Amino acid sequence: MKLVITKDYKAMSELAAHIVLSEMFVDKRVNVAITAGRTPKLMYEQIIPVIKGNPSLKNVHYYMFDETPITHRIGDNRQQLNDLFFTPALIPSVQIHPLDEHNDDDYEAQIEAAGGLDLMVIGMGADGHFCANMPPKADFDQYMYRINIDESFPWQKRYQDSVLPEQSTYMITMGAKSLMKVKRLVLIVNGSEKAEALKAAILGPVTTLLPASILRYHPNLTVIVDEEAAALLDRQEIQKFL
Amino acid sequence: MKLVITKDYKAMSELAAHIVLSEMFVDKRVNVAITAGRTPKLMYEQIIPVIKGNPSLKNVHYYMFDETPITHRIGDNRQQLNDLFFTPALIPSVQIHPLDEHNDDDYEAQIEAAGGLDLMVIGMGADGHFCANMPPKADFDQYMYRINIDESFPWQKRYQDSVLPEQSTYMITMGAKSLMKVKRLVLIVNGSEKAEALKAAILGPVTTLLPASILRYHPNLTVIVDEEAAALLDRQEIQKFL
Amino acid sequence: MKLVITKDYKAMSELAAHIVLSEMFVDKRVNVAITAGRTPKLMYEQIIPVIKGNPSLKNVHYYMFDETPITHRIGDNRQQLNDLFFTPALIPSVQIHPLDEHNDDDYEAQIEAAGGLDLMVIGMGADGHFCANMPPKADFDQYMYRINIDESFPWQKRYQDSVLPEQSTYMITMGAKSLMKVKRLVLIVNGSEKAEALKAAILGPVTTLLPASILRYHPNLTVIVDEEAAALLDRQEIQKFL
Amino acid sequence: MKLVITKDYKAMSELAAHIVLSEMFVDKRVNVAITAGRTPKLMYEQIIPVIKGNPSLKNVHYYMFDETPITHRIGDNRQQLNDLFFTPALIPSVQIHPLDEHNDDDYEAQIEAAGGLDLMVIGMGADGHFCANMPPKADFDQYMYRINIDESFPWQKRYQDSVLPEQSTYMITMGAKSLMKVKRLVLIVNGSEKAEALKAAILGPVTTLLPASILRYHPNLTVIVDEEAAALLDRQEIQKFL
Repeated sequence: MKLVITKDYKAMSELAAHIVLSEMFVDKRVNVAITAGRTPKLMYEQIIPVIKGNPSLKNVHYYMFDETPITHRIGDNRQQLNDLFFTPALIPSVQIHPLDEHNDDDYEAQIEAAGGLDLMVIGMGADGHFCANMPPKADFDQYMYRINIDESFPWQKRYQDSVLPEQSTYMITMGAKSLMKVKRLVLIVNGSEKAEALKAAILGPVTTLLPASILRYHPNLTVIVDEEAAALLDRQEIQKFL
Repeated sequence: MKLVITKDYKAMSELAAHIVLSEMFVDKRVNVAITAGRTPKLMYEQIIPVIKGNPSLKNVHYYMFDETPITHRIGDNRQQLNDLFFTPALIPSVQIHPLDEHNDDDYEAQIEAAGGLDLMVIGMGADGHFCANMPPKADFDQYMYRINIDESFPWQKRYQDSVLPEQSTYMITMGAKSLMKVKRLVLIVNGSEKAEALKAAILGPVTTLLPASILRYHPNLTVIVDEEAAALLDRQEIQKFL
Repeated sequence: MKLVITKDYKAMSELAAHIVLSEMFVDKRVNVAITAGRTPKLMYEQIIPVIKGNPSLKNVHYYMFDETPITHRIGDNRQQLNDLFFTPALIPSVQIHPLDEHNDDDYEAQIEAAGGLDLMVIGMGADGHFCANMPPKADFDQYMYRINIDESFPWQKRYQDSVLPEQSTYMITMGAKSLMKVKRLVLIVNGSEKAEALKAAILGPVTTLLPASILRYHPNLTVIVDEEAAALLDRQEIQKFL
Repeated sequence: MKLVITKDYKAMSELAAHIVLSEMFVDKRVNVAITAGRTPKLMYEQIIPVIKGNPSLKNVHYYMFDETPITHRIGDNRQQLNDLFFTPALIPSVQIHPLDEHNDDDYEAQIEAAGGLDLMVIGMGADGHFCANMPPKADFDQYMYRINIDESFPWQKRYQDSVLPEQSTYMITMGAKSLMKVKRLVLIVNGSEKAEALKAAILGPVTTLLPASILRYHPNLTVIVDEEAAALLDRQEIQKFL
């Protein structure tokens, strides 16, 4: 793990944008999976002007690492990524590979047949979840799998209000084993409300109670955080990750 | 070859900076060789604020791809890189590997023993030279070699005024075979005065009269140019490089 | 280039077989292109017992690097590879990707969409040809292309007797630029009748008169030869390739 | 994980030998760490005739992944590797990098400065240990570390008879985090006495009680076993690893 502590959200976003852009402008097919949510908002704002309509990026293909299927509608994450990135960046739909309840069994085989994922950029929740590997239900022995959303699922409570009746009772997500195969993995974390989770993910035990703790085994992981998120990290202990 | 035509010098510099920064923030030793000269000036201005004093970059080592030895003084390229980048970016000298007339025989063996070059960023002259592979003397069958500077050397005439009495009568440069081993090669070219050379390098024959023409065989080359440099490229012919 | 001089044809074949087998048994899709002809005969005999019916090799896909289309029949190279390898090794046809006059325009795009070629094993003719890059018509600026077989084609004369009326008047071949993108390239050469060509390919000038001379620019090339083929190599000059 | 079930110890050894030899004959420095013990005996017998005195292997450097220091003597593993491989294969000592109680703090930094480990071949004990990551003391959060050998260490009991008075009270070993950085990892396991451990390592939970269970997170792992070791594996469950 390479840990990079940036001074603020803007610097974190810029560094993540450098990596995403760099990985795209190469003479080969590139397969990427990038996160929705609030964390990457500014990263996309940095990226979009460079790639919007850029004729040199026909080689870049986009995959989803998780999805919440909704009947008769586009999935929740895809909708968010459309709004945040695909639509404003004018990404041709032929370069976007949707994930849904009909193809989740075969999705990773498709990625493997395309040479594997070159880059994944993910965020982490204050509860330590990554993709939809939610505590405590995350299963580190899985590639892509379905994780139930039900009353026993604490994460669900927080989001209850926004659950649509048409929403599936499960989420689809890549698991730890999928992520280990990604050639370059980037984790971005900002804000003091995630400082506890970041500390646990980096310095605590590996446990499904804090799923991001498993990511430390990835051989090419860059963790980019702002100072607020890094506030609880013991500077002595993190020396080896700088 | 991936060809990227950016709208101006600033956009070219920013894209090159994205790549340099991205390659540095990884959890492994990184060996880079980056160019002096006028072309990368703005690229370094983009890079320096991010890496100056950054504690997460102890893994980055800097190598020279060419040098003009000067008796009793630091080499010409090293001096330029000091001024442009190493000094303002506060790069510790332990991470900089000087090249001179005493170690050029062994320099590439040192690089190989450190895992090889991960990234090289080069420019190209209006005469098509890269590193110090000067037309028509460039020798495509060489790894690092010495190329004589003498009256038969047309390139010399142009720079005659600046030649110091203490300057060596040769330059040291990596050759085509060295560059082919670099894991990622980036060529940056801007300005209308290089448009002819760029066209020849990309679309003309491979020849020592235009040394950069050999670079097309590199398997992971990104050529970043501004619109002025790209002005003479036939849009039909370059489709396959976009 | 890594040059390995083995004591005889058997040792050459075994080393090539080690590489082919090693590249196959990995946890990812593997795309390989391997040669027909006489040279690899013993290599295939080494490989076949290991992979015949092996359930752990569903990840290996086979591509052709050249082909001579024949009307109403399977191509000439595919037929040879069927006989030498695909049939005795029981390779499922879903893992074999035929090349013909209908798909040669799109064939390399398919390979790129599958992640590129991981391994290519080629031979070299006594005339210095590789794949169907024939002297003096080889075009080093090409990816896959068609090379005409006509009276001006000296190579043709030698094979005249075996030309069928239904045979196409051209061959399809990957060019130098295709090969540079292959992740690992292996060239096998045996026999005294190829000693002159081998010497020229390694130590002579790069020229379309001896097409294999261009291969020296490949960054991950292993050249495996027997002592007969190596007989004319100056031991001093080849030191740097060992 | 790619799982390969071979019919017997000989076939297991040959496949491992293919991989070791293949990784060595490349045009770059190669850093390998290979196991002592009984398991690889036949693998070395396959390898030695090919590499003994081979002038094309000056690029291969050998590192140790664990060691038992002994006062005034060469370490226990180094002695075993000398006997098994280094001495009969005539490996020059300049290509062998000893590990001992004086350099274990710096050893992995040396490897990283040499470009990292390209290949590691390990065995597994019937107790599930790998390298010297012994149950239950193995610490998955470590790079290289010292693991105490004392009365609480069940593994010790079994080997008590062979412990020399001069032997250190600890072993030095690379940990899980070190292994995750190895570019290609090969695990060889044979014999019915390891069938339980193999089943647990592949299909059981990840636990320090069976340290090899952590290896499943490595992105480029080939597990080569003979039929006796594979006897307890549920054929349905292992389908995804073939």
